[in-house]
Amino acid sequence: MIHGKAIARVMGILMLLVGVLMLPGAAFSYYYGSSDLLALLGSSAISILSGLAFFFAFKEDKDGIRKREGYLIVALTWVVMAIFGMMPYIISGAIPKVPDALFETISGLTTTGATILTDIEALPQGLLFWRSMTQWIGGLGIIVLTVAIFPLLGIGGIELFVAEASGPTNDKLHPRIRETARRLWLLYVGLTVLVAVLYYLFGMNLFDAVNHALTTMATGGFSTKNDSFAFFTSPALQYIAIIFMFIAGTNFTVIYFFLTGRVKAALRSDEFKAYAVVVAFLIVAISVPIYFLGDSGVEEAFRKTAFQIISMITTTGFVLDDYTAYHEGITLIFFMFLFFGASAGSTSGGIKFVRHLTFFKNSYLEFKRIIHPRAIVPLKINGDRVTGKIITSIMNFLLIYLMVFVFGSIFLSFMGYDIITSFGAVATSLGNVGPAIGGVGPEDSWNFFNPAAKIFLAFLMLLGRLELFTILVLFTPYFWKAN
Amino acid sequence: MIHGKAIARVMGILMLLVGVLMLPGAAFSYYYGSSDLLALLGSSAISILSGLAFFFAFKEDKDGIRKREGYLIVALTWVVMAIFGMMPYIISGAIPKVPDALFETISGLTTTGATILTDIEALPQGLLFWRSMTQWIGGLGIIVLTVAIFPLLGIGGIELFVAEASGPTNDKLHPRIRETARRLWLLYVGLTVLVAVLYYLFGMNLFDAVNHALTTMATGGFSTKNDSFAFFTSPALQYIAIIFMFIAGTNFTVIYFFLTGRVKAALRSDEFKAYAVVVAFLIVAISVPIYFLGDSGVEEAFRKTAFQIISMITTTGFVLDDYTAYHEGITLIFFMFLFFGASAGSTSGGIKFVRHLTFFKNSYLEFKRIIHPRAIVPLKINGDRVTGKIITSIMNFLLIYLMVFVFGSIFLSFMGYDIITSFGAVATSLGNVGPAIGGVGPEDSWNFFNPAAKIFLAFLMLLGRLELFTILVLFTPYFWKAN
Ligand SMILES: [K+]
Ligand SMILES: [K+]
Repeated sequence: MIHGKAIARVMGILMLLVGVLMLPGAAFSYYYGSSDLLALLGSSAISILSGLAFFFAFKEDKDGIRKREGYLIVALTWVVMAIFGMMPYIISGAIPKVPDALFETISGLTTTGATILTDIEALPQGLLFWRSMTQWIGGLGIIVLTVAIFPLLGIGGIELFVAEASGPTNDKLHPRIRETARRLWLLYVGLTVLVAVLYYLFGMNLFDAVNHALTTMATGGFSTKNDSFAFFTSPALQYIAIIFMFIAGTNFTVIYFFLTGRVKAALRSDEFKAYAVVVAFLIVAISVPIYFLGDSGVEEAFRKTAFQIISMITTTGFVLDDYTAYHEGITLIFFMFLFFGASAGSTSGGIKFVRHLTFFKNSYLEFKRIIHPRAIVPLKINGDRVTGKIITSIMNFLLIYLMVFVFGSIFLSFMGYDIITSFGAVATSLGNVGPAIGGVGPEDSWNFFNPAAKIFLAFLMLLGRLELFTILVLFTPYFWKAN
Repeated sequence: MIHGKAIARVMGILMLLVGVLMLPGAAFSYYYGSSDLLALLGSSAISILSGLAFFFAFKEDKDGIRKREGYLIVALTWVVMAIFGMMPYIISGAIPKVPDALFETISGLTTTGATILTDIEALPQGLLFWRSMTQWIGGLGIIVLTVAIFPLLGIGGIELFVAEASGPTNDKLHPRIRETARRLWLLYVGLTVLVAVLYYLFGMNLFDAVNHALTTMATGGFSTKNDSFAFFTSPALQYIAIIFMFIAGTNFTVIYFFLTGRVKAALRSDEFKAYAVVVAFLIVAISVPIYFLGDSGVEEAFRKTAFQIISMITTTGFVLDDYTAYHEGITLIFFMFLFFGASAGSTSGGIKFVRHLTFFKNSYLEFKRIIHPRAIVPLKINGDRVTGKIITSIMNFLLIYLMVFVFGSIFLSFMGYDIITSFGAVATSLGNVGPAIGGVGPEDSWNFFNPAAKIFLAFLMLLGRLELFTILVLFTPYFWKAN
């Protein structure tokens, strides 16, 4: 039996949180005298009152929350936040239709960053700020989930690599999960403030600095500008974004180790090393053709390439240039980036390096096993042996991810979109990246999709953000059968 | 240390075989008085003499052939057959350039069926027949390899499902591998004769009947007509092709069980059941939109759809209609078929149903394992439990297959081809299918590719035909290191 009361109480807390976090947007709205003040205050009031009602109507469950409720809570968390989160768009009339408002909100909360807006700058400041805030909330949510909830649920085989970048017993970030989660979200808040200050110091106005700080650390990619980050032509600002997108794509535990001087512990993370090395390699390798194909100087070609690669691989999705305009081969490489994802335990979406790393290492060892069938050839990550169960689980995740991509693309193409657009939209939704290829290139609005397609793509964003299994398991009979 | 002598001796036998099998082509050439008689006889003589020289120069190795030599022999078999097999094209001047002739020969021997010819009917009959014969030889080769060699080498985790469709100890086709291989190739010869007779009885001339019989049973797809099978408008002929393509995509052991009346043993093959059910379901499901999108009657829509689906899924690649002309969604589904492959132990290429089945069953069970982490949830195929090692091996194959597809597509797109054409050409080469999408649609010649791209695509055909690992393992240090 599923304990509905415990779930309802948690949802109440979430509504409260959403309502409270709408207030900074209202403050900006008041400051700028923009037209959306009442819509934000009203939405905030509704959310807070609903939250209080749910919280007091449902008492804490004596049994606490078990695994099965955990899945439902995780899925419902995003749904409830989306329903309350889209109210300001609808009430203000800025995005009057529900599928559009829902798409924009889920694209925000899942830190995807695809937009149905065709003129972002026409949105009043209060809503613009709330839009960025949805991404920051989503980033916060995923950090808490990854540390506190996913290990409990066992999702896609990466749970072991998240909190314990440094081995099984020593050097744990902190024994108590609640404390770990608190430290990591403090880190998240601190880094957001830091990058906001830097953006401000190097030339953005306060509003843009705060907005872009929120969506940088969330690897979200929403911008207050129609041209996205290309609006900010200052190389210094672009380098700041490059560095902080990279940081936002790093496992927060690893960042914590670095900041507290435990460099050795941080460098025990094979995922971090693979992430750093692969990103560095790709920047060098792709800067060269982009330098020769484009008409910018060496530094600019390097900066543009670094920005775009890191923006895609960390699943941030800030846009500096139309990367589909260089060459079919480059376009295809950027399409492939939609399947990367940065680190587990960061705010980035997608498949993530630790899964790729496990697969690549294991594949290579598989050849050794073919040649020496009787030898025992263990796979090690972070110095520890990875069990066959985890390897299977990770390969299964990879294959199901690709299967969802394929079936999703077929489904979308049957709604009338061409193959490349279908591939691009599905891959980028599932990977929570934002820009893609085809009709959803880096400079395109997603407004042309029909309402059903928008809902479907929003569903894929949710599926990707919650590591597939959290959602998919709800569709199996195993979940609903009595224990 | 690798025993070169034993390998050279085997290569000698292969050259002999190739030389002898060129003679029927020469006979057709003589009968039709076509211009290629001398080229065929000359090539045959060179092959036979080289074969004899190799055979007698290298004595049998006392140590016999070990696993390591096995890999090299398998890879070299196709290379040597390709080198000798392309001679008639070059000597006759019909396909004067080496990359073209090599492409056409490897496309034949791997039973892929992509062609660089722009006017197939302009080829003299002797060469046309040799072209069909290369596919038939390739089909024969893969049956022998699958039964006799792959289980020894342990390739991609399907070795267990091939010879033993009916369980681990009882009902084995035959205990001795040599005898099994002999029975299966006799079955292959018998079915080829049968379908040739049927094609002839229902309206093809003798030459076309024999050619299409050879390429039907090999799931090869070379035709003597520019319009491929669409030249034969008779529904009866098309139904015969439908049935025999389906049979050619069935595990030959299962066919043998059926023919000897052991229906129960045949039906223990989960792969066969999945193959039959999925094909039937797809025909029904896709006939409906094709009926509404096209302008043919019910029977014709059904027949066309059945033909095209079976042609793609069995990796035969006969063409009846341009399936990319209906709808983007249908095109994408046909693109997906390039990743199917029919049964292990048939002549079809690609991934094959037993791997898909293992993955799907295991994925579904994975959800059960998530909900009940302490329960033991075994996976069964053909009534037997599949070990974790085999599951890992199969999932690894699937992922490496997809990885080769992705990197292959990027590589090809950098040679200057658009994304859809690159995806299509790489997928269909790797799957040994033949037709694809984009610039290599069902009605296109592959002649427009540059020589390097042709060589690369031929390499992918070889990679796919030999289940990836046989070739890839040669590129690892493990293979070349001393024992
Ligand atoms: K994003
Ligand atoms: K074929």
